[in-house]
Amino acid sequence: MSQSVGADAVAAQRALLEKQLDTLRTLNAKQAPTAAVQSEAALLQNIVTQLAEMNVSKSAKKGGGKITLKTPKGTRDWDPLSMALRRHVFSTIERVFNTHGAVTIDTPVFELKEILSGKYGEDSKLIYDLQDQGGELCSLRYDLTVPFARFVAMNPTEYGSMKRYHIAKVYRRDQPAMSKGRFREFYQCDFDISGTYDAMIPDAEVLCVLVEVLEALDVGAFTIKVNHRKLLDAVFSICGVPDEKIRSISSAVDKLDKSPWDEVRREMVEDKGLDEAVADKIGIYVQLHGNRELLEKLEADADLTQNQRASEGLADMRLLFDYLDVYGILGRFSFDLSLARGLDYYTGLIYEAVTAASAPPGFTGGDAPVMPKKSKKGDEEIDESTVGVGSIAAGGRYDNLVGMFSGSKRPDAVPCVGVSVGVERVFSILMQRIKDAQARGERTVRQKEVDVYVMSMGDGLLLERMRVSKMLWDAGIKAEFMYKKKPKMQAQFAVVDKEQVPFAVMLAPGEWAEGKVRVKLQLGRAEESDKGKEVPLAELSTYLREKISTL
Amino acid sequence: MSQSVGADAVAAQRALLEKQLDTLRTLNAKQAPTAAVQSEAALLQNIVTQLAEMNVSKSAKKGGGKITLKTPKGTRDWDPLSMALRRHVFSTIERVFNTHGAVTIDTPVFELKEILSGKYGEDSKLIYDLQDQGGELCSLRYDLTVPFARFVAMNPTEYGSMKRYHIAKVYRRDQPAMSKGRFREFYQCDFDISGTYDAMIPDAEVLCVLVEVLEALDVGAFTIKVNHRKLLDAVFSICGVPDEKIRSISSAVDKLDKSPWDEVRREMVEDKGLDEAVADKIGIYVQLHGNRELLEKLEADADLTQNQRASEGLADMRLLFDYLDVYGILGRFSFDLSLARGLDYYTGLIYEAVTAASAPPGFTGGDAPVMPKKSKKGDEEIDESTVGVGSIAAGGRYDNLVGMFSGSKRPDAVPCVGVSVGVERVFSILMQRIKDAQARGERTVRQKEVDVYVMSMGDGLLLERMRVSKMLWDAGIKAEFMYKKKPKMQAQFAVVDKEQVPFAVMLAPGEWAEGKVRVKLQLGRAEESDKGKEVPLAELSTYLREKISTL
Repeated sequence: MSQSVGADAVAAQRALLEKQLDTLRTLNAKQAPTAAVQSEAALLQNIVTQLAEMNVSKSAKKGGGKITLKTPKGTRDWDPLSMALRRHVFSTIERVFNTHGAVTIDTPVFELKEILSGKYGEDSKLIYDLQDQGGELCSLRYDLTVPFARFVAMNPTEYGSMKRYHIAKVYRRDQPAMSKGRFREFYQCDFDISGTYDAMIPDAEVLCVLVEVLEALDVGAFTIKVNHRKLLDAVFSICGVPDEKIRSISSAVDKLDKSPWDEVRREMVEDKGLDEAVADKIGIYVQLHGNRELLEKLEADADLTQNQRASEGLADMRLLFDYLDVYGILGRFSFDLSLARGLDYYTGLIYEAVTAASAPPGFTGGDAPVMPKKSKKGDEEIDESTVGVGSIAAGGRYDNLVGMFSGSKRPDAVPCVGVSVGVERVFSILMQRIKDAQARGERTVRQKEVDVYVMSMGDGLLLERMRVSKMLWDAGIKAEFMYKKKPKMQAQFAVVDKEQVPFAVMLAPGEWAEGKVRVKLQLGRAEESDKGKEVPLAELSTYLREKISTL
Repeated sequence: MSQSVGADAVAAQRALLEKQLDTLRTLNAKQAPTAAVQSEAALLQNIVTQLAEMNVSKSAKKGGGKITLKTPKGTRDWDPLSMALRRHVFSTIERVFNTHGAVTIDTPVFELKEILSGKYGEDSKLIYDLQDQGGELCSLRYDLTVPFARFVAMNPTEYGSMKRYHIAKVYRRDQPAMSKGRFREFYQCDFDISGTYDAMIPDAEVLCVLVEVLEALDVGAFTIKVNHRKLLDAVFSICGVPDEKIRSISSAVDKLDKSPWDEVRREMVEDKGLDEAVADKIGIYVQLHGNRELLEKLEADADLTQNQRASEGLADMRLLFDYLDVYGILGRFSFDLSLARGLDYYTGLIYEAVTAASAPPGFTGGDAPVMPKKSKKGDEEIDESTVGVGSIAAGGRYDNLVGMFSGSKRPDAVPCVGVSVGVERVFSILMQRIKDAQARGERTVRQKEVDVYVMSMGDGLLLERMRVSKMLWDAGIKAEFMYKKKPKMQAQFAVVDKEQVPFAVMLAPGEWAEGKVRVKLQLGRAEESDKGKEVPLAELSTYLREKISTL
């Protein structure tokens, strides 16, 4: 694979680089069109890459030409056990989504670069770009919300009003912390409702779906914090935060789930230059959290009720609480005025679900964890090293995102509300549970679902085992046999034991001649005699199907 | 989104570029380490990208700030109908794989660049690279076979002997022909068996799986062509092809499924400089195809039986035919000495399944088709514009690929055999069938699976509809209601009709007061009276579940 590269080739490549630097310098000096600069810069990049590869192949040769066997940083393989768990999690979630009449879509893993730009604020630096190999500039998707908005904007008539889910991988060049389920390639699982409806009815259903999903996944105790962007903005405004500081003060407040008020106040006053009196006034509001009684308290606050945006926010919250009450799930929610959520595109209700379950200390696959662990120990342990990592789901209303794409006159022509479930964290929690169960010697998820092992009890009987297996496959019965002409009996039993295959179908020359095989329940041996049961070949599929159904 | 960018900012950016060019020139002149050059070149690239973005946002402002709304070239969105079909296809295929005891894995969508290099011959130019943003150089996966080999090489003890499938997207910067199901982002669906076993037993099972998959998918008539690399190489050698020409002659022969022999002969003699007598001798062999009788004919050919590699190939084919016969699927196969398959890594048996089904003229989603269409019309229409496009599945034995990664002493320490099903072509065929059925006015796949629509027959009854819906969701019944406080009756019925929702649950103030709702079978109305049936609320879930099960 690695080519022999001499000093001459490297020198030639360096000369090429020199020449290309000259070309670019000339273009730049005469203010040539950006497209031309870009295209020459791409060529330069190719030259440098080739130079680097010469170097790599030289050092690879030194090291015996061996390739580094790993997945890229922040990514991992999914082994069969992880995949079995992933399939379980996805099918559980999809069942809930389908019950609510959602359809599903998929989008390409990369989008045109310009589709993603300007959507993620500071985090845009975490976007993966594809190399410019000629043609369009593309980037890997950063989330599923922007591609959804792009999809709806492209098909407003058909999908301007839809309930859809999307489960797919997204990409962020973040500092990975794989032990906590934070990867550079990871799954998101989004449920969104687009379209103009009466206020808060879709919002309440999204939250109802979230509760049903978290209950179905059995992730343990959870709370869903809710707040409203309009109310929060109004609070800042009422307290006297200057307009240009609202964004940065909002992000300071968002840290209240991990930092004490004193620290947040210090950041606002010292780092962000906020007046102390203003900070204290904010403190009174944002430390409030509760349920319906908090809503009533705020509804009695004249400062708020006289503010247009605060009134709108409170009216929304009132409706929401009524609807959540009808759904019988109000007890799951905490009205939390400190919840701010980072993303630029939220316009109304916002929410975040947090669980009490801790991230497991070591998760399978991938390379080593990186980030230091700062979380407290105890029942309520929440990952504290990064904003949002402790949360298990989050979302909100974003009424203007589709409008950013469609360029329609009304920015909120296609309002949307949705939630993204943090499935990687769900995987972590459930995988830890599986490992704990395995450590206690309990039976857990099987990687492989084989129900029958077709064995030879002498003389190989390969063609006969093939014939029986094919008969079972055609009957939809999961079966395997050993890929040996004359397998040893012990070797076959070893597989049955190791893989916990429930049934053994045993072929012996004498019985076979009479058109019979022997079936033995290997799992929970007590139920049948050790010698198993003789079954005529013609009745085998029916017999096994019935036995398997009672497992 | 687009920022206001003045001439000053552009000038500043150009000055930055100038400075960076100087930095690179200095580094290069003094032969600085490649890593330093690379890192500075990456910075340069960033500067140029920002310069380009300033330009884009300027021109975007000129054009009203509107973004191009499309997916990248060669990619497409999956709308709900396509997704419903995709789910059907995948679950059908997975059912067969699971029946054979396969487990599944997943790998990252990008691999370290060096993992992919040197595996795809000429086609390496089609690999998508990620931009060098610092850190490792990565590329999007080109197929699922190389990642599988990398995975096995990393975990030889656990997975050196496994039966796995992998369904995932792969990426090729090829000229797209979307109407034919040829994309730059597309699904592959691979089933492979790794490990050392008795000859041809796993090979025969892979082919058995392929037959079962194609039968289960109901893609119409198909034939699986089989050949053996050792036999083919021996034939070339016996006919007198010089060793260095075997590769190029082999690729000429591979075209025999689309070109007549005269044209292939011309290419070998005129373009590739083969002796005419040698070409004619090859012609006698590679125009042979048949079944068991061909095998017997070749077994009687002394030139072949005296050749070591030919003998090995023939012995393998003899075993294979015996095994396929036991599986009762021999009739599906054609022993075809012209089948060569392009990929470098095959070492033994090779195969390709072709169907008689034609590619549909226009497939949903994405941008316009590009390639000219050269195929013949008629029942046996096979897409002829590109090698392999007409095939619906292909694969073979590759005994040395894992060894390339593990660097083990024996290159075939972990031999493998597998098949890749061309699911995009399957989607095309089945989608065309759905569209034909729709054109005939037949009911087909439903995008949405809702069974019940909860309606108000007066007075809105929003909270009541919510309560009933939640009751149904909790019972696992797929239900929706209209997101309006006071929806019009006609509007609700319009949804039921348009989305073919089988049942309407109707709430009216009077009945509701008595704890009752009315259930009406909307689909196939004849079965119940137009007025529907009154059902007490407490019995609703049970009643509906039973009714739905009999649909």
